[in-house]
Formats: sequence, C-alpha cells, structure tokens
Amino acid sequence: MSVSKDGAAIASLVDGNVVGDPDIRVSGVASLADATSADVSFLGNPRYRDRVLPSRAAIVLVPESFTPLPPEGRAWVVCNDPSAAFSKVVSVFAPPPVQYPPGCHSAAVVHPDACVPSSVHVGPHAVIEAGATVGDRSVICAGTYVGESVRIGEDCLIYPNVTIRERCLLGNRVIVHPGTVIGSDGFGYESGPAGHTKIPQVGIVQIDDDVEIGAQVAVDRARFGRTWIQQGTKVDNLVQIAHNVIIGPHCFLIAQVGISGSTEVGTGVILAGQAGIAGHLHIGDRAIVMAQSGISKDVPAGKAVFGTPAMERRQFAKLQSHLKGLDHALKSLRQLQETVEDLKTRLDKES
Amino acid sequence: MSVSKDGAAIASLVDGNVVGDPDIRVSGVASLADATSADVSFLGNPRYRDRVLPSRAAIVLVPESFTPLPPEGRAWVVCNDPSAAFSKVVSVFAPPPVQYPPGCHSAAVVHPDACVPSSVHVGPHAVIEAGATVGDRSVICAGTYVGESVRIGEDCLIYPNVTIRERCLLGNRVIVHPGTVIGSDGFGYESGPAGHTKIPQVGIVQIDDDVEIGAQVAVDRARFGRTWIQQGTKVDNLVQIAHNVIIGPHCFLIAQVGISGSTEVGTGVILAGQAGIAGHLHIGDRAIVMAQSGISKDVPAGKAVFGTPAMERRQFAKLQSHLKGLDHALKSLRQLQETVEDLKTRLDKES
Amino acid sequence: MSVSKDGAAIASLVDGNVVGDPDIRVSGVASLADATSADVSFLGNPRYRDRVLPSRAAIVLVPESFTPLPPEGRAWVVCNDPSAAFSKVVSVFAPPPVQYPPGCHSAAVVHPDACVPSSVHVGPHAVIEAGATVGDRSVICAGTYVGESVRIGEDCLIYPNVTIRERCLLGNRVIVHPGTVIGSDGFGYESGPAGHTKIPQVGIVQIDDDVEIGAQVAVDRARFGRTWIQQGTKVDNLVQIAHNVIIGPHCFLIAQVGISGSTEVGTGVILAGQAGIAGHLHIGDRAIVMAQSGISKDVPAGKAVFGTPAMERRQFAKLQSHLKGLDHALKSLRQLQETVEDLKTRLDKES
Repeated sequence: MSVSKDGAAIASLVDGNVVGDPDIRVSGVASLADATSADVSFLGNPRYRDRVLPSRAAIVLVPESFTPLPPEGRAWVVCNDPSAAFSKVVSVFAPPPVQYPPGCHSAAVVHPDACVPSSVHVGPHAVIEAGATVGDRSVICAGTYVGESVRIGEDCLIYPNVTIRERCLLGNRVIVHPGTVIGSDGFGYESGPAGHTKIPQVGIVQIDDDVEIGAQVAVDRARFGRTWIQQGTKVDNLVQIAHNVIIGPHCFLIAQVGISGSTEVGTGVILAGQAGIAGHLHIGDRAIVMAQSGISKDVPAGKAVFGTPAMERRQFAKLQSHLKGLDHALKSLRQLQETVEDLKTRLDKES
Repeated sequence: MSVSKDGAAIASLVDGNVVGDPDIRVSGVASLADATSADVSFLGNPRYRDRVLPSRAAIVLVPESFTPLPPEGRAWVVCNDPSAAFSKVVSVFAPPPVQYPPGCHSAAVVHPDACVPSSVHVGPHAVIEAGATVGDRSVICAGTYVGESVRIGEDCLIYPNVTIRERCLLGNRVIVHPGTVIGSDGFGYESGPAGHTKIPQVGIVQIDDDVEIGAQVAVDRARFGRTWIQQGTKVDNLVQIAHNVIIGPHCFLIAQVGISGSTEVGTGVILAGQAGIAGHLHIGDRAIVMAQSGISKDVPAGKAVFGTPAMERRQFAKLQSHLKGLDHALKSLRQLQETVEDLKTRLDKES
Repeated sequence: MSVSKDGAAIASLVDGNVVGDPDIRVSGVASLADATSADVSFLGNPRYRDRVLPSRAAIVLVPESFTPLPPEGRAWVVCNDPSAAFSKVVSVFAPPPVQYPPGCHSAAVVHPDACVPSSVHVGPHAVIEAGATVGDRSVICAGTYVGESVRIGEDCLIYPNVTIRERCLLGNRVIVHPGTVIGSDGFGYESGPAGHTKIPQVGIVQIDDDVEIGAQVAVDRARFGRTWIQQGTKVDNLVQIAHNVIIGPHCFLIAQVGISGSTEVGTGVILAGQAGIAGHLHIGDRAIVMAQSGISKDVPAGKAVFGTPAMERRQFAKLQSHLKGLDHALKSLRQLQETVEDLKTRLDKES
C-alpha cells in the first residue's frame, strides 16, 4: 500500500476534528492492539478505551466522550461514530478489491440453452445448466454450480463452490458466500413399518433482492411452493433453513441458527447465534431470539426471548437470579424446618 | 405447467370423495396461504384449519374431521391422509425432474483405473480417482470428488460439490446432498508438552442402502475400522458424525445434530435438531433425544429425553413447572420465615 | 492387506509383553466388537473391559491393570498406553496412504502469475489465482480454490473443494479438510431505516504453522487486520469463527463450536462441542468451556465452565443437584406451611 494520509486529511474524510498534531502521517489501518506507528485505528467499543493510550497507532478515531489527550507524536480524530467513520478510512487504505472481468472462463461449462449476458463473469469450473438465466453484471465464481432453469438477478456475487439447484430464484444484488447450498431437498418422509419413504420435494427456494447469505449455509427447497428469504435479510455462516420456511425482510440470522420446516419469521427479526426454532411457528416482527435459545411456541412481535424452552428475557433474568439464590434458599428451608421442629417440641411440652 | 385436472380426477387420484362441484379445474399446487383459484391445496396439519376457508385454493384435500362446507366455486376432496395424498397430486403437477443422462461429461476427470459403467452419469468437473467403482445407474453430479478405491452402489444420487474420500463405501440407492463431506479425518490427537500430535485415521466410512444424507454434513472416517450409518437412516443438513460412530437402521438425525466419537445409536432413534451426544455412549432403540438436548449418559431404549444435561421428558416437564413456580415458592418461603419468627417471639413471650 | 505379524512382533513394536501364545498371527486391525480371529485390537477405554473376553480378536493390547488371562488361541500384549500403542500397530496394517504426486493436473487452472513450485501437487479442477504462492511439497486437491495473493506455506495438505479467498495466509504443515471456507466476509452491517448496509470486510485470515482445520468450517476474514488462528491449534468440523477472532496456540475447538466477532481465546483452551462464545470476550489460557455452553462473559485462565449462561463447573454441578432435589424441597415447603399453620392455630387457641 503506497497511500499515505495526514491527520487533517483523515479528519476531513470522516468529518471530524483533529486533537493533537494534524501533520502526523499514516499509511495503513489496524486495530488498537495490532497498530504500528504508521497506522490509523479507532475506538469503536467503549470496552476498549483502555487500549487507546497503550496503542502505538499514530491516529485514533475517538468519540467526543473520550477525553484523555494524545501523547506527543500521536493524534486523535474526534468524530460522531468512530466505527462507521473507520469504514471510510479503511476503504482508502484497503487493497483494491478482486476484479471479476466480464466473460466466461474457458474452463467453465455453460449450457448453450443458458442465458448468460456478456457482462457476466463466469469463473473456471463453474457450471451453468440449461434454461438458467443470469442477470447483467452478476459474478459466478469458480466451481459454482447453477442448476437447470435457475434465475439469478443483476449485480449478484456468487462466490466459489456454491451449489444452486434447479429452478431456484435469486433477486438482484444477492451475495452468496462460498460452499453454500441453495435448493437441497427438504427433510420429509412418510414413516411406516418398512422404513421411511421420501416425500417428493418439488418446490423451490426464492431469495429476494439485497439478501446476503454466508458460507456453508443450507437452504432447503420447499416440498411444493417455495422456501422464501425476503428482501434485505442477512444470513450468517452455517445456518440451516428448512423447507417452506419464510423469512421476512431485513432480518438477521446469526451463525449456526436452525429453523425447522414451515416456520414464518416476520420483519426485522434477530435470531442470535445457535438459536433453534421448531417447525410451523410464527416469529413476530422485530422479535429477538437470543443466542442458543430453543423456540417451541410462537414469539409475539417485539418480544425478546431467551432460554430452552424460551421465555421473555426479563423472566429469564429473574429465573437466573432465583437459581443463583437457590443454594441459600434451600439452606434457609432446612433451618426453618429445624426451627419449626423446635417450636413444635416446645409447644408440645408446654401444652 | 399445462396439466389441468378437475375435482373428480383429483379425488380418483387420491381415493377420496369430492364435496362440492366436481368439475372445478386446477392446474397447479400451492399451500393454503399461497394458492390461487387455479390451485389445489391441502390441510395437512390441524393448526392450519382456519386457513382453509380464507384460502383461494379451488380444491382442498381435507380429512374427514373437517366439517365446514366449501363455498360456491370451490370444492373439498375428503381423504384419509391429506398430506400423503397431496404428494400424489404434487407429482402430477410438478415440473419434470432433472434428467441425468448416462455417460461421462467431457469435462469430468475419470481415472482409467476407475470402474464406471456406461449407465452412470458423471457431471462436468466431477473427479473419480483410481480404483473407485460406481454401480449401475448411479449419478455423480458436477464438481463432486470420488476418492481412490471408493465403492458406490447402484442407483445412487450424489449431488454437486460433494467430497467422498478414499476407500469409503456407499450402498445402493444412497442420496447425498450438495456440499457434504464423507471420510474426513476423525478428530484425534495425543497431547503432550510439545503440542497435539495427530493420531492417524486410517479407517473408512460405510453407508448402507437407502440412506439419505443432507447438505453440508460431515461424516468422519474411523480411526480404524469404520464409521457406520446403517440401512434406511436419514440425516438432515449440517450434521456432524464423528469417527467410529455407529448409527443403526431407520434413524432420523435432524439438522445440526452432533455425535461424538465411538457413540452407538440403535434402531429407529430420533435425534432432534441441534442435539449433541458425547462420545462412547449408547443410545437405545427407538429413543428420542429432543431438540438441543445434551447427552452425557447412555439413553435406554424407548426413552424420550430432553435438556442439558438431559433427563426423561416427563421429569423435564416437571422441572420446568417447578421453575415456573419458583418465584412464588421463594416468596412463600420468606413469608413462612416471618410467620415462624413471629410465632417464636410469641412463644418466647408466653413462656 | 498381505501383512501378517505374530504376537511377539506386535509386542516388540509397542514395547510390550505377550501374555499367552506369542506365535498367534494377525493380519488386520479392528475394534473389539468388529474383530475377527485374524485381527489385533486394543482396550483403550476402561468402559470397554467387558468387551475383551467376548471379542474374537486374536491379540488384544491391554494395560497392566487388565488381569484376566487370555483364553486358548488368543493372546494379550500388555503395554503402557494401549491406545497410543495401537496407532503404531494400525500404521503397520493400514492401507498405504493416498499419494499426491508433484505437478499440476492438466485440468487445474493455475494463473501464470501464481507461484507454484514443481514439488507442489495441484489436483484436477483446482484453481490458483494470480499472485498466490504455494510452498514446497504442499498439496492442493481437486476442486479447491486458492484466491488472489493467497500465501500457503510448505507441506500443507488442502483437501478437495476447499475455498480460500484472496490474501489469506496459511503457515507450514497446515491441514484443511474438504468443503471448508477460509476468508468469507465477516458478518457486519450498519442498520438504518432503509435496511442493513454492508460494512466492508477488507482484512484477512491468518492461520499459523501446524494448525488443522476440519471439514465444513467457516473462518471469516477480518473487517480489517486479521482473523488469526495460532500455532498448533486443532479445529473440528462445522465450526464457525467470526471476523477478527484470535485463537491462541494449541487450542481444541470441537465440532459445531461458534465464536463471535473479536473474541480472543488464549493458549491451550478447550472449547467443547456446540459451545457458543459471544463477541468481544476473552477466554483465558487453559480454560475449558464444556459442551453446549453459552459464554457471555470473560472466562478466567484455567477455569472450567458449563451451562447457558455458563458458570464454574462445580457451581453447575451443585445447581444440578439442587434442581434434582427441587421436587422434594417444594413438598417440604408445603408440609412446613401446614405445620406452621397448625402451630399457629394451636398457639392462637392457647393464648
């Protein structure tokens, strides 16, 4: 990286004010812990305040509430939201992003009946089957499989080694990270004395505009109809989305969440890491399911729930506090039993 | 889809009876919520009864217990098991399944010492290594890797981007969904002052007839001998099966289950989503491990267990009920302490 | 396998002593349950003692504490650590490991600006992008993607269908199992009224010497700087490692563990299966997080914690014991209430 900026330039970039020497120059970005004296860093989380002064970062983006002055040879840039501001700084120093030039690599296999405009990038060993269509400027990376009659919108970025099975639909600006599988069969069987007979899974997966799906995610196709992830929802790594699930717009599904069949998730819901949701449930708009929770009943809109089985967050906190006091309570109970026994004896004697 | 059927034809297909106009025509299938007036739908789960009348579905498969009459222009088909019946209807309207014509794609790499009969489909960028054998009519999809001396039976369907490492054995009619890994090294180390030394994992994975394995599953090869999934067992997505695990026939392993090394699971066991089983345990026949449970002791045959650490389902339910009453019980305890203190004071005074 | 050994040779191999006939010959290895009379087996875990005599294994490696004598036609080899000893025996009988001859397969795509020495194996359909460098004797298996400017050290083994995105760094002797993704974007968004805006993730993943990473693992690249897995750490299958996480040397991350962003894990830490760690935490050296635990606070060095929310292992055990006694305690409380009511009535009458 040959970019070099001084404190004044950084402050101008993030609409902030320099405290200390505005001429100090930086040529890279780093965390407070990793920074050298040629780096700019930031205080994004108050819990790291104590790392600002020991850091070697020449320039640190700080919020107004951070009052210590910079030592000789360093500077602060005071700004509104140091974390958001830092993204701008990072983009100046970041290495240029990978380019995906338009065109099909000679080692890709694109079926003659697929519709792939010339603005699309198709990487080596990618496969695009008959009847598939890819929108302008989309990128299909190396080793990715696009099944028959799949429709992918414009400006999508499908990373390497992704599998998208037949007839699934992706909107515009969808990002899919490596290794992810879209459209695998839902888990459905009729069980009888001879074993489990597969129920055909002939539906699809529909993924709307601006959805981002992490690495190693599995999204099962519907038994019929569609499994549906709506506009702007973001899915982290290693998430399981079963057949016929509907996820509303603008949700966050954090890593390793699992959602069972036919459950419907509302708008703006947050499912925190490793949470599990049973099938045929409804999770209301803006609900928050906290990490590792197990949901076996509907969650009303706006509620935050925690635990397995899950309860309202406040109720969970109260229960935890009771459990912490349980040792003491059981001792009190034993003492009380003795006291009562004692009283009884005295009363027996006296009467 | 150009297929069109009337109510009488649907009833005949599912061995049911039409209630309402038998001449109403449908040309597609959908859920009650998604259906248009050209669709047939079904009531498979009693919790959706209230969706039948508001649905626009022209024909709905319903059980005998569903008594409301269809409004003008719609019809019910009463049948024994609407969910099973609907699979037959779906298969009539479903788009034709993907065809995998026999033969090796020119962009596949099949070792001359592999045994791949002409009835086998090998997709583009698939790799079949030396000594591997694939049974008649099996399908090896694009980008899938079949390692040295792997043996795959007849009529198997191995979806894209699967990895099967050396010497693993798959029976007949095995289905493996995309991205899954079979035969990765078990997690075994000898730990000493210099760090962790790898214990060789020279065994295999054996998967018996009629097993289906979901997407993104990891099945580790045995330290020696075999990790073994027996006949008819169905494994959902993102499941972890460690080295030397044995899964009996006809089990269900739901999504994100994890089973540690050398554990043996009996016949017809259900491990619900996100459950975790410690190593060297035995899970008895027809046991049910409920979702998210953590198993650190053997589970007897036929038992249903829940929780971490897991207990019998009824015991778990009782504990939950006690926990719900804990707030009240602790208040009662404090009141009782006061009452007793009071009695003691009275008794002290009187004596 | 045509290798055949007698008991004396086995004993010499593992530095043990034969009890019984030293001339008995074996030609394979197996578990106690699977062994035939041509196999050698071992008693590695005391819970399997009762399997030694019923086993058909001709020779069994046993510890000194195992006192029953072998029946006619079988022999024990008494040794210090039968499990470690058995690895030596296994390596004698194991089929020869897969060979990865040096050179690039003709169906691999290696960019002319990549640096791949002639001692490196590059399998069919592997892709190595511009600016990537691979160290001597490393193996890049079929279908694996090595992004731009990635640096891989010497003697690494990267199994099939792995994805390593741009600029990530791998040390020497690193093993990566199939399907794993290194360098996917961290899960970071600024949320506003118009939805979630992606925060650029321009950092890398750095993996140090002697690290082994299981199948289907996801390691996200840093927002900036690096996500870092340090020397000798071993990661099991289906683990999630979020952006900017730092894992110290010689840790064990067991299957399906999830670690949220910016958390730092010390030296020699064990995170057991399905454990989840929230973001921005510190897990001290040699700490043990037990299976399925949920960590939302720092864990001090050397502590073992269990539960969600996690507590010290002894505290957890005590709480479990209290919970087991809760039914009884609540009955005692109700009895006590009656007794006290009774005493109160008597006292009221008497006074």
